[in-house]
Amino acid sequence: MRMNAIVAGVGMTKFGKHMDRGMKSIGAEAVTAALQDAGLDKSDLEAAYVGNAAAGLVTGQECIRGQVVLRDAGIGRIPVINVENACASASTAFNQASAMVSSGCYDVVLALGVEKLYHEDKRKSFAAFSGAVDVEALVEIKARLAQQAAATGATKAASGAGEKRSMFMDFYAASARAYMEKYGATAEDLAGVSAKNSFHGSLNPRAQFREVLTVEEVLAAPMIAEPLTRPMCSPIGDGAAAVIMISQRKARELGLSNPVRVAASVLRSGWDRAKGEETVAEVCAREAYEEAGVGAQDLSVVELHDASAPAEITTYEKIGLCGDGEGAGLIRDGATKLGGRLPVNTSGGLLRKGHPVGATGIAQIVELTEQLQGRSGDRQVEGATLALAHNGGGSIGSDAAAMCVTILSR
Amino acid sequence: MRMNAIVAGVGMTKFGKHMDRGMKSIGAEAVTAALQDAGLDKSDLEAAYVGNAAAGLVTGQECIRGQVVLRDAGIGRIPVINVENACASASTAFNQASAMVSSGCYDVVLALGVEKLYHEDKRKSFAAFSGAVDVEALVEIKARLAQQAAATGATKAASGAGEKRSMFMDFYAASARAYMEKYGATAEDLAGVSAKNSFHGSLNPRAQFREVLTVEEVLAAPMIAEPLTRPMCSPIGDGAAAVIMISQRKARELGLSNPVRVAASVLRSGWDRAKGEETVAEVCAREAYEEAGVGAQDLSVVELHDASAPAEITTYEKIGLCGDGEGAGLIRDGATKLGGRLPVNTSGGLLRKGHPVGATGIAQIVELTEQLQGRSGDRQVEGATLALAHNGGGSIGSDAAAMCVTILSR
Repeated sequence: MRMNAIVAGVGMTKFGKHMDRGMKSIGAEAVTAALQDAGLDKSDLEAAYVGNAAAGLVTGQECIRGQVVLRDAGIGRIPVINVENACASASTAFNQASAMVSSGCYDVVLALGVEKLYHEDKRKSFAAFSGAVDVEALVEIKARLAQQAAATGATKAASGAGEKRSMFMDFYAASARAYMEKYGATAEDLAGVSAKNSFHGSLNPRAQFREVLTVEEVLAAPMIAEPLTRPMCSPIGDGAAAVIMISQRKARELGLSNPVRVAASVLRSGWDRAKGEETVAEVCAREAYEEAGVGAQDLSVVELHDASAPAEITTYEKIGLCGDGEGAGLIRDGATKLGGRLPVNTSGGLLRKGHPVGATGIAQIVELTEQLQGRSGDRQVEGATLALAHNGGGSIGSDAAAMCVTILSR
Repeated sequence: MRMNAIVAGVGMTKFGKHMDRGMKSIGAEAVTAALQDAGLDKSDLEAAYVGNAAAGLVTGQECIRGQVVLRDAGIGRIPVINVENACASASTAFNQASAMVSSGCYDVVLALGVEKLYHEDKRKSFAAFSGAVDVEALVEIKARLAQQAAATGATKAASGAGEKRSMFMDFYAASARAYMEKYGATAEDLAGVSAKNSFHGSLNPRAQFREVLTVEEVLAAPMIAEPLTRPMCSPIGDGAAAVIMISQRKARELGLSNPVRVAASVLRSGWDRAKGEETVAEVCAREAYEEAGVGAQDLSVVELHDASAPAEITTYEKIGLCGDGEGAGLIRDGATKLGGRLPVNTSGGLLRKGHPVGATGIAQIVELTEQLQGRSGDRQVEGATLALAHNGGGSIGSDAAAMCVTILSR
């Protein structure tokens, strides 16, 4: 599906712990900001795609989440499509909104990602992640993770039921141990990702964590699931991010001075891969490059799904920034740090900007749109013209359940 | 948005109590049947829209519901978009799938609605409905319903928390009392809807209830929320329904002999209506007729959202089958019974076919497609050429949160 949608405006809340605010409040803030940025009114909206993953579990709002949030922003009547794809819920909303304006179905569409994860009972927050795998296989999955942890001598076993951390960190830890064993990557390399992203986050007023961490500080932090210390794991958080998508026709009508174009947006689901087969991230990236007619070497800036520090390194490889086993090298030589060859996660990434799961995918789009428009302040990548976002969600078979790779250009 | 999608195949499970089967099993049955009906293979599918409302609450599968269900049917890789709009989840999936093939984004798309509501703890089943309003306003909504019930002397007060029935029946009861007061409709009229649909359901092998009920039997049944007796309320149920949507290009390639065309599919959300303003169902129906270039007088058969018996009567008026206050007359003169002028809910409707919420909208499409293709057996409407489906979900402001009206033609 060829995309030719335009990003007319973006807006987001600060990510973090908003104990005094609900989904309506943070959702309305993001939507209002995006409309203002686009110079459009809520009455211009023709449809809304709303991504959320955990409200059913965390707030009890099991159904019509988008309608409830948008009503508070004074938006009704239009079609509201509530979409869910775990941590890729927002990029799914973005992908669908892009398709709808690209194909001429609508001229002005809202895509919103909104998530409240903080709850007085943290087990409730973390339970959201256990719902992002086949729950009938949950016991079996946890047993396998515990077995892998024991086999590799990890000092922290896989998380039990109701524990105050995400089971997904056990997935990431297991895959990190295998990767380190295979390619000789070190704990310092993983810590380097967190240190780099902490520097980027320190420059982002909307990031959940602003403190700059050294590699040594990251390594010295409490162990969550060996080899992952706390700053190598994305935190839970609350937040909302919105984007107003418009058609090329509407963009001409508005005479936009600094438009950002969706050059490609590829959404796919995982499957039971055969050994050696491409991952869903590899497939999405390859198809996105083809669709946009560009290659990894043309990119100016990237936001990727660093739900854990090692995930950033392996994703470098999956999206073609380097060859297999070469990911850690990009951290060692500073290539992906601001000022380097290809800055990655200038927002601070999931690790430092935060990861309100159903909002993350659109927050990436907000960051990249601002980069392409030259309005990222202290963390601006000079002359950025082409950007890529990578957002994955859930687990199915032997891969991510949902994956979305987007390429934006100016 | 102008639709020109083709229904290539339909399939569904029997609706009812499937205590021994999960979402995967019933979902796979519906998908396999729809693919077989279309003469297509799962490898032909380019995307899937999966509607579900309550799995998070009932089965714990909060995220990636579609991927989990489809994996069991051997389907992966393709984009899976999990959509939710309470009782209109499936018609939302259908609407989006129709838009995607109409606009040329895809040639072959699956739309699936799947729901497991039966649970050993029935309170869990009914809790699903409380999530279909703004949950922050739940206490206030229940208090208002109880007050209305007391004010009109209803013998059954509004349901309390954790009660074994849906709060929505209190909404329907309150609106039924107001309607009866205003237009002189009687309890016999409401019972007439249930009796008619019980006759239709008796002819449908896939209906949850097959027993034929008389008006007297309906009136003598236990009271749920005055004036609604049990057979005037749709039951909870499990079930799945699927449809394969294809583009006109693909239809020509396949040389379909008996194609059913989507002439219109209008999805909208409710809002805080001013007094006397059109309802969201009225807006959707009006726009659907305009889009299809037809009027209510042209319809051959209708499936509508009879979540309660009075809802069928008031919906007659909202979708233009008769004037305000004339709905009960269509029941009294048998106009909407098989053999009448315009048969409505030939499947048995939600009241008798059953109402697994996230599957209902596509089950309506299955019934109407078969009617238009002349394969409805004992309940065939002779010479049916034009059909309308009406499916609503949740409550927002003073109206349904989501509403979808679809017109199919052959």
